[in-house]
Amino acid sequence: MTTPLLGTSFIGHSRATGTEACGFGIQPGTGTSLEPAYHSATPEEVEKAMALAAAAFPAYSALSGKLRAGLLRAIATEIEGAVEDIVERGLLETGLPEARLRGETGRTTGQLRMFASQIEEGSWVDARIERADPDRKPIPKVDLRSMLRPLGPVAVFCASNFPLAFSVAGGDTASALAAGCPVVVIAHAAHPGVAEIVANAVIRAAHATGMPEGIFSVLYGGGRKVGQAVVKHPVTQAVGFTGSRSGGTALMAAANSRPQPIPVYAEMSSVNPVVILPGALDRGEEALAEAFFGSLTLGVGQFCTNPGLVFLPAEKGGAFLTKLKSLVEAGTPGMMLNASICQSYADSTAAFAATPGVETLARSANQAGPGQGAPAVFVVSIGDFLKHEALQGEMFGPATLIVRGSLGEIEAVIPKLEGQLTASIHATTEELAAQASLVQALQGRAGRLIFNGFPTGVEVCSSMVHGGPFPATSDGRSTSVGTMAIYRFCRPVAWQSFPDAALPAELQDANPLGIRRMDPAVPA
Amino acid sequence: MTTPLLGTSFIGHSRATGTEACGFGIQPGTGTSLEPAYHSATPEEVEKAMALAAAAFPAYSALSGKLRAGLLRAIATEIEGAVEDIVERGLLETGLPEARLRGETGRTTGQLRMFASQIEEGSWVDARIERADPDRKPIPKVDLRSMLRPLGPVAVFCASNFPLAFSVAGGDTASALAAGCPVVVIAHAAHPGVAEIVANAVIRAAHATGMPEGIFSVLYGGGRKVGQAVVKHPVTQAVGFTGSRSGGTALMAAANSRPQPIPVYAEMSSVNPVVILPGALDRGEEALAEAFFGSLTLGVGQFCTNPGLVFLPAEKGGAFLTKLKSLVEAGTPGMMLNASICQSYADSTAAFAATPGVETLARSANQAGPGQGAPAVFVVSIGDFLKHEALQGEMFGPATLIVRGSLGEIEAVIPKLEGQLTASIHATTEELAAQASLVQALQGRAGRLIFNGFPTGVEVCSSMVHGGPFPATSDGRSTSVGTMAIYRFCRPVAWQSFPDAALPAELQDANPLGIRRMDPAVPA
Repeated sequence: MTTPLLGTSFIGHSRATGTEACGFGIQPGTGTSLEPAYHSATPEEVEKAMALAAAAFPAYSALSGKLRAGLLRAIATEIEGAVEDIVERGLLETGLPEARLRGETGRTTGQLRMFASQIEEGSWVDARIERADPDRKPIPKVDLRSMLRPLGPVAVFCASNFPLAFSVAGGDTASALAAGCPVVVIAHAAHPGVAEIVANAVIRAAHATGMPEGIFSVLYGGGRKVGQAVVKHPVTQAVGFTGSRSGGTALMAAANSRPQPIPVYAEMSSVNPVVILPGALDRGEEALAEAFFGSLTLGVGQFCTNPGLVFLPAEKGGAFLTKLKSLVEAGTPGMMLNASICQSYADSTAAFAATPGVETLARSANQAGPGQGAPAVFVVSIGDFLKHEALQGEMFGPATLIVRGSLGEIEAVIPKLEGQLTASIHATTEELAAQASLVQALQGRAGRLIFNGFPTGVEVCSSMVHGGPFPATSDGRSTSVGTMAIYRFCRPVAWQSFPDAALPAELQDANPLGIRRMDPAVPA
Repeated sequence: MTTPLLGTSFIGHSRATGTEACGFGIQPGTGTSLEPAYHSATPEEVEKAMALAAAAFPAYSALSGKLRAGLLRAIATEIEGAVEDIVERGLLETGLPEARLRGETGRTTGQLRMFASQIEEGSWVDARIERADPDRKPIPKVDLRSMLRPLGPVAVFCASNFPLAFSVAGGDTASALAAGCPVVVIAHAAHPGVAEIVANAVIRAAHATGMPEGIFSVLYGGGRKVGQAVVKHPVTQAVGFTGSRSGGTALMAAANSRPQPIPVYAEMSSVNPVVILPGALDRGEEALAEAFFGSLTLGVGQFCTNPGLVFLPAEKGGAFLTKLKSLVEAGTPGMMLNASICQSYADSTAAFAATPGVETLARSANQAGPGQGAPAVFVVSIGDFLKHEALQGEMFGPATLIVRGSLGEIEAVIPKLEGQLTASIHATTEELAAQASLVQALQGRAGRLIFNGFPTGVEVCSSMVHGGPFPATSDGRSTSVGTMAIYRFCRPVAWQSFPDAALPAELQDANPLGIRRMDPAVPA
């Protein structure tokens, strides 16, 4: 380890001295405690982090996009420099394989550089210019110009299943910093060491780029105490979260109970329905089963986009099921992220198996070791599926429920599903055209529609929507992946009759930043 | 009256038969009841309106922007055809003068046509296209395209202070219909007759343009019962509201208590602080007082943007106050919108006058008749202002509070103000440049900043932001005026690997609608 781990929070540029131990990193499977002990931020330390964030906001939000981009790029470089430390510690505390840790580090630095490019270019602020017309009748028209401005300090919760890409310097932090918002991170108990390594990288980058103290803090804390304190703190203006439905709805309740309610962007739970039409089976049931099994078991099923619900025609699909059964039975158990997730997986699959009408099609014949999860597939008729609301719930891990019914029954059930991150449809092009109302129903329930593919594999780009109607996310108007994620942390502000020099550069007559603007005086 | 008033709700294309009377239109001042009696929608009628809205959504949201624009233009034309009826009834039930009723009708039809133009042109959907790259390493890149889609049926509450522009076919309805959302309007008890006239116009337009039944209903209801039922109904996907803080926060609580929380866009209360710097006084204190008085008393002070709070340098401004005193004393009382608003105005001005440290600078010397409100100005030191939080509250009507302090004290108090729709600063250009941190503090508290002007007069255009941090609005990320208002009722959806013909026209390769898109294959 290049820099020794201290086990304390980052309060702006300083390290906390909080003395209440809140736990160790734990090695999945063995349960071994990993040094050092981590310590909760004290209420005074939380207060100091928030005060620093509030103090940093005016200066930080006034920086140019180019300067903020410099910070993001420096963070990416520092993280790359720490990748061996990340892998070393990540292997111990997350149960993830090395390739995944390196890949996720790459995704994280890629995200930081994507947002850097977006704010360097600058057009994302949606600048709108309408010039004065003093001669307009019956009343003169004033000069009015608007653009997006940052909301203020943002609380970011690290995700258990993405120790890098949705944690300390992950997508929420990167998009909030890009927007001009200071970030206060609440570390996750499942990977405190990786959090500390990445936090050190961010702080080094903040120093190197001369950022005001307080744009970034990381708090450790026992249970939900520290997180609730940050969400309820008057300085906090928005919340980013990826995790369980109970965790997300608790944050929503906390945010709504404030004297000033604030937006919560919680990405919570999704079973990512997959609809298989007969024509897709005709193309080859075994190949379809293999592709599905690959998506189901990717990352031991611990992705938000894991396909946990499949609608299969009642009258077809025998070979698909037979192949899937053999794949699952031969499936290898995988190490899960932590003991709590492993236990939840065991509990939820047991509950599904015990639900009347649910048949256990297959479970892995290989014994799962301590901390491991093994693939499982359940089958139910659409009638029994509708009788038991709990069957819409998530089995977080490599398990799925196959629901069999007629095409009419499947179309009728889609609008009754909860909101989802994704919905996939496997069909021929002709079937897709013929089933426009089924596709529209799927569109009404999801943020991303996938044709002849599976939902895992979330491209980080400008057209990605990784969001969806509640409870997939708390706010289906947003995405937590891709360049649109920056819009979560902004609001529009208009300037009326301001002299040119007093306007933000984005709105000045000469367009000194050369950005795309809505300006009727300048043809697009 | 061209079409006789029936006093019943509009349930899609039918009229309700609800038998529970919920009141009459009441003439402000006289208290005279205006025929006919209005009747609450029954729970069954509410259910039917919601079911029709749900049934209409798939077909309506699938219509092209051009077809939806046809509806909006037809509504505008029908409203223009009903303007004499609107004026006749409006004069009786709103207390507003004829010029205002005609002007507001024009604003309403203008808004409808503005949204029609926006959706006819079509680029507002933010189409983003990223094409597949099968050769990308380490994994192929999928084809991914996204655009905004409507949320679903929207509940729109009529506003007491805008019987046309923020009521049955006002900005919320126009932007929701433009986005592709059916609308269920909850009429306001203060102008049920105008609501019925406008609703008839909308229904005629819906028939003429062949719209599916259920895209539009108008419900009358006693108290808050019908409104709460609509907000809590599972079909409703968003809420638009302009009114009191208590009303708006009640809707927020109802929306958050649903199994599926939904966004509420409530524009609630704002005192629209005006900061006057010494240089602005040096240019002419009397002229400034006259301009301020004009804004303060416009529409008997019943605009959301009424300037209810002024920060004036302690050491200057004597002539400003003297002039304002004489204007207020000579000021004419005006008919207020209804008895409840008139009583609230009397109560709030009395409470301000009785607050320790508050001096009543002037009240109109002219006796206010029944239902009327008269101008009033109060003065307080910044120290006493800070001691009494209630002085940040709204006196809805032509009254204002002038707070006197040093420039340093004024700058220090700005971040402590609640969120506002607007903030105005009167200064020389040099002062504005010198007070950058004061301006930034104001920007942090408001949606629109005004230089050397007053907040009344809200331009309906593409750069308007009529929104602001809570409690000015429930969601400061939005505006309820201008073309950006359409974004309140949408969410992004992505299509992955869809065949071209199965994509919405906005996302097809050939760009058949000719809209602006984010498409790296086509240089901007």
